[in-house]
Amino acid sequence: MKKYNFNPGPSMLPSVTLENTAKAIMDFEGTGFSLMEISHRSKEFDAVMNQAVALMKELLEIPDGYSVIFLGGGASMQFAMVPLNFLNTKAAYVDSGTWANKALKDAKMVGEVVVVASSKDKNYAYYPKNFTIPTDVDYLHITTNNTIYGTEIHTDISSPVPLIADASSDILSRPMDISKYAVVYGGAQKNIGPAGVAFVIIKNDMLEKIKRPLPNMLNYKVHVENNSLYNTPPCTAVYSCLQTLKWLKELGGLKTMYKINVEKAKMLYDEIDRNKLFKGTVVPEDRSIMNVCFVMNDEFKSMEEEFLEFAKKRGLYYLKGHRSVGGFRASIYNAMPKEGVVALIDAMKEFEKMKLK
Amino acid sequence: MKKYNFNPGPSMLPSVTLENTAKAIMDFEGTGFSLMEISHRSKEFDAVMNQAVALMKELLEIPDGYSVIFLGGGASMQFAMVPLNFLNTKAAYVDSGTWANKALKDAKMVGEVVVVASSKDKNYAYYPKNFTIPTDVDYLHITTNNTIYGTEIHTDISSPVPLIADASSDILSRPMDISKYAVVYGGAQKNIGPAGVAFVIIKNDMLEKIKRPLPNMLNYKVHVENNSLYNTPPCTAVYSCLQTLKWLKELGGLKTMYKINVEKAKMLYDEIDRNKLFKGTVVPEDRSIMNVCFVMNDEFKSMEEEFLEFAKKRGLYYLKGHRSVGGFRASIYNAMPKEGVVALIDAMKEFEKMKLK
Repeated sequence: MKKYNFNPGPSMLPSVTLENTAKAIMDFEGTGFSLMEISHRSKEFDAVMNQAVALMKELLEIPDGYSVIFLGGGASMQFAMVPLNFLNTKAAYVDSGTWANKALKDAKMVGEVVVVASSKDKNYAYYPKNFTIPTDVDYLHITTNNTIYGTEIHTDISSPVPLIADASSDILSRPMDISKYAVVYGGAQKNIGPAGVAFVIIKNDMLEKIKRPLPNMLNYKVHVENNSLYNTPPCTAVYSCLQTLKWLKELGGLKTMYKINVEKAKMLYDEIDRNKLFKGTVVPEDRSIMNVCFVMNDEFKSMEEEFLEFAKKRGLYYLKGHRSVGGFRASIYNAMPKEGVVALIDAMKEFEKMKLK
Repeated sequence: MKKYNFNPGPSMLPSVTLENTAKAIMDFEGTGFSLMEISHRSKEFDAVMNQAVALMKELLEIPDGYSVIFLGGGASMQFAMVPLNFLNTKAAYVDSGTWANKALKDAKMVGEVVVVASSKDKNYAYYPKNFTIPTDVDYLHITTNNTIYGTEIHTDISSPVPLIADASSDILSRPMDISKYAVVYGGAQKNIGPAGVAFVIIKNDMLEKIKRPLPNMLNYKVHVENNSLYNTPPCTAVYSCLQTLKWLKELGGLKTMYKINVEKAKMLYDEIDRNKLFKGTVVPEDRSIMNVCFVMNDEFKSMEEEFLEFAKKRGLYYLKGHRSVGGFRASIYNAMPKEGVVALIDAMKEFEKMKLK
């Protein structure tokens, strides 16, 4: 039986990413050495890094004047680095969920923070809208997709101040107008690669705004100037990212990927809306195409555990929702095939039939 | 022909580490999922982290009252975290080479630094000794092994102030008296695993000395309290580390490993001293057992490139010395088998015979 992994991250990756990484660990491109043993200063690894950067630029159509770097430490380290590098006077944050909250709490350790909008009043079941962006702040920080609550901002907003986005869980799921952003960052472990590496897309003129004295590893300028090789990068993880980026290009790029993602998400939300046992937790216009959150209707609430077991027996794993929302969460990132979503829909239909017969 | 990798890091790893990692990437312990896809919150990964921590404690005989954590970002990130967490008034640093220097430069971005000793006067060809440790500093920072210059401090010194050591390139090469240290840290990519993860051994009472407001990812207390799971750790890299730690335990632990390392190093240094073409660059008492630096005697200097080519043809790779020293560097970490060192010695003998016949 085919198993499907609905984990929110680390999560499903294209099988070619897994196969090529495993192969390179045993023999890296015919060198006779392991990917885990080769020098980050070798011409072989240099090519890996350069290709990964080039494919990020190509797939996301990143305009000139931006740099792409890969850093260890995950997106959470960027929660610290963003204010350390750019919060000189005051920064504005949108509080759209748990991760947005963690980012703004870390920024408060560094300087003054204004929360310009929050959807906490409804347990983050919608994406904050129609807020005013102050013009006296160093930047506005948003979280484009809220992994835990299943909400997503579906547009690239215009901001009068530099816009900085944590796009950990929807990067590469759709074409994005990078020119609207000053910085886009995220952990790799949803749509790109394994845990242990983060990407940062950064507009070069932002580097001139770094005023605070910083240890080198915390300074974006150092990493950009050294093409992500100031220190030894997480080489194996970057190689895995490259495999996924190649897969994405071969598939047809982000327009194709987005079409598939919208189709998968629509099928699943349609079933949630139709099925008498389930209901979505997010207002329809803000529903994420990556993390689909749903619960059982009040009268069936007691069946949630049973449905998880039922799904697991059919090869559908890790559907339990985060404790902040409860119920279920199906993370259907780029690598989740349509068949996985269909299998989940079939399970929901069958469970309904069983219970409401 | 067997190939030997004398890279200073990322470097040779036990073949069982490579094989088990590659296997787990295709199927993690029979779960049907990849190691790169499983949740860091799963009981399976929890076991990986706990075993890795337990083996570090067992192998290094770490006393009670210490914690072991695994963090992304490498040792260079610790150059920043150490002063951010512990430099409240002033810190003392020993300048024993390039990496020690990077650590102290980063500390200067955070607060006042006194350099208590330096071996820069002789291009770091010895380990600074007989220095006075001031008692009015928050800590003393040393680098136990200098990867680039091939010097090593062979004892665990006593310090009146908390002793903090970067042991990136000699951790687990010998038994260590951890009780002498407040913090021991390092990147994994020499003796433990792939690049992308660092270990930190920390005396718990140090956590009470953290005064500066810090973003969570930069705060050791947060990582200790969350058992390295505050954010998504570099799971795949931690798994690889665990494989090496198991290998080391099976081999007989650090006493056995140390005996082998001393034997390998002695054989090679003896040949360097005997061979008419070569000479060591480090004073004998401070020679590293991990990174063996040597050059050709002045009259044969022009043959260095030729010897590198000669060695490569015999399967001996990456012997070129760092540009700061020149000549050759044979990094003979734990995973380098005695046969690799013998093969290098044979090549040196044969090259000598060829040239001095």
